[in-house]
Amino acid sequence: MTPDLDRFAINQITTRDWTLPEAVEGYARAGVKGIGVWTEYADAAGGKAAARQIRDAGLFVPCLCTSAWVNLAEPAAFAAALDENRRRIDLAAMLGARSLVVVPGGLAIGERDLRAARARVEDALGALLPHARAAGVALGLEPLHPMYAADRSCLSTFAQCLDLCERLGEGSGIVADVYHCWWDPLFEDGLRRAGADRILTFHLCDWLVPTRDVYQDRGMVGDGVIDIARYRAVLDEIGYDGPFEIEIFSKLDWWLRDGRETVQIAVERCAPFVAKRLAGAEV
Amino acid sequence: MTPDLDRFAINQITTRDWTLPEAVEGYARAGVKGIGVWTEYADAAGGKAAARQIRDAGLFVPCLCTSAWVNLAEPAAFAAALDENRRRIDLAAMLGARSLVVVPGGLAIGERDLRAARARVEDALGALLPHARAAGVALGLEPLHPMYAADRSCLSTFAQCLDLCERLGEGSGIVADVYHCWWDPLFEDGLRRAGADRILTFHLCDWLVPTRDVYQDRGMVGDGVIDIARYRAVLDEIGYDGPFEIEIFSKLDWWLRDGRETVQIAVERCAPFVAKRLAGAEV
Repeated sequence: MTPDLDRFAINQITTRDWTLPEAVEGYARAGVKGIGVWTEYADAAGGKAAARQIRDAGLFVPCLCTSAWVNLAEPAAFAAALDENRRRIDLAAMLGARSLVVVPGGLAIGERDLRAARARVEDALGALLPHARAAGVALGLEPLHPMYAADRSCLSTFAQCLDLCERLGEGSGIVADVYHCWWDPLFEDGLRRAGADRILTFHLCDWLVPTRDVYQDRGMVGDGVIDIARYRAVLDEIGYDGPFEIEIFSKLDWWLRDGRETVQIAVERCAPFVAKRLAGAEV
Repeated sequence: MTPDLDRFAINQITTRDWTLPEAVEGYARAGVKGIGVWTEYADAAGGKAAARQIRDAGLFVPCLCTSAWVNLAEPAAFAAALDENRRRIDLAAMLGARSLVVVPGGLAIGERDLRAARARVEDALGALLPHARAAGVALGLEPLHPMYAADRSCLSTFAQCLDLCERLGEGSGIVADVYHCWWDPLFEDGLRRAGADRILTFHLCDWLVPTRDVYQDRGMVGDGVIDIARYRAVLDEIGYDGPFEIEIFSKLDWWLRDGRETVQIAVERCAPFVAKRLAGAEV
């Protein structure tokens, strides 16, 4: 049976060694319908060329990864980071991306005040919001695993991001990733509280036991312990009809393989979770 | 100035290569007033002998580490784990330990149902509570960092543990560790909600950037990014007058050093945070 991949995207970091044109071609050939784009690859291809390649291949773009870090205490550096983020919002719009994934960094160098860091991120997002609204690109707040709170993102829980979205209002939403949230006793509550409209894209990945590297040992769907079917059921319950997007950082395994193999296995593993409607689900 | 170490203990895993007698001797010599004991070391020394050595050295015992894992779906194995935990409760009582630190494991082998795992832990704690109450040893629920949810403890947040304590009632409490909780936007709220009486012991450690190992690259106090002074202030605010206990898992650094050096530096680094009353604090 041909898998229903209409809602399925691959985030291009999953095939790290492929250029953007290679990823577009490789995903489309496998029947995947979307590509999560990273700024570095789009810049390398040229934004306009990247947009055209993606459009010509008929792929949708659930998100552009990621915002530039704003964990900078020094005002001029902070202002420069905002400018770079405005550029990335424009790039997202050019690519037809629904959202820019916000990964704002953790603490500033030498800083221990996590509250100040979080307040700074909120200030930055507030400052970026008018530009994002005008561009029609949502700021996608992604709760990142707490093990990244110091150095990648001080947005650590679903509830924290949702509270922040509620304060920011229109033009903000949530990028949910099972890898980052699966442990959270409040994750399912968060999905329900968010509702379908606030969830911009939903990332698939798996948690390996053991996890051999803090940063880049994320697992292929099915190789770990995350109960993805459960979260899919919650998403169906709340009427989510947006994208599913596999995203894997794996310097110890998948990044070492040929991209075609990674794509093929990603499709096989994700197919049971990403169909427009799941077999047995109520219509 | 001689540091005020009356409330200060070292958890013996911090000096991994020392036997229990060596740790007792080494801590007492440095003026440290308490020792967090691990079952394996106490068993190796013999429970009665360990208790006598600790008593003779005049050390207090904030906790015994840890409970035996109960993440076992098979009924006979689960029952055996409960028996082993009853033995550890008795050992804790023999050592004069205030609490047995509950680290119950994560998912069972092959399991993906985190809710079931958490329910099983709650069942186990409910089953152990009468024994713990009779022995005068509190079950110390320790929120463990979410990166350990799969394989070490499915008790992942302070709020989750506190909710569980409230359901369990008398004989249960919280073991708080800045390493595990510092990232949590609700950590300070949790401390306040817990109140002084529910916090059995307070562990000190630091979060290194980068963290090179998921399991055993925890930092010496002062070498990382955790704002310990801030949490000490919250503890003073709620009237906490219990122990402070440094606990470091560090296969890449501190476990490679001589225990005497580790103890000396631990005392120096922790002294500003563990005094009975801090300079400048209201009396």
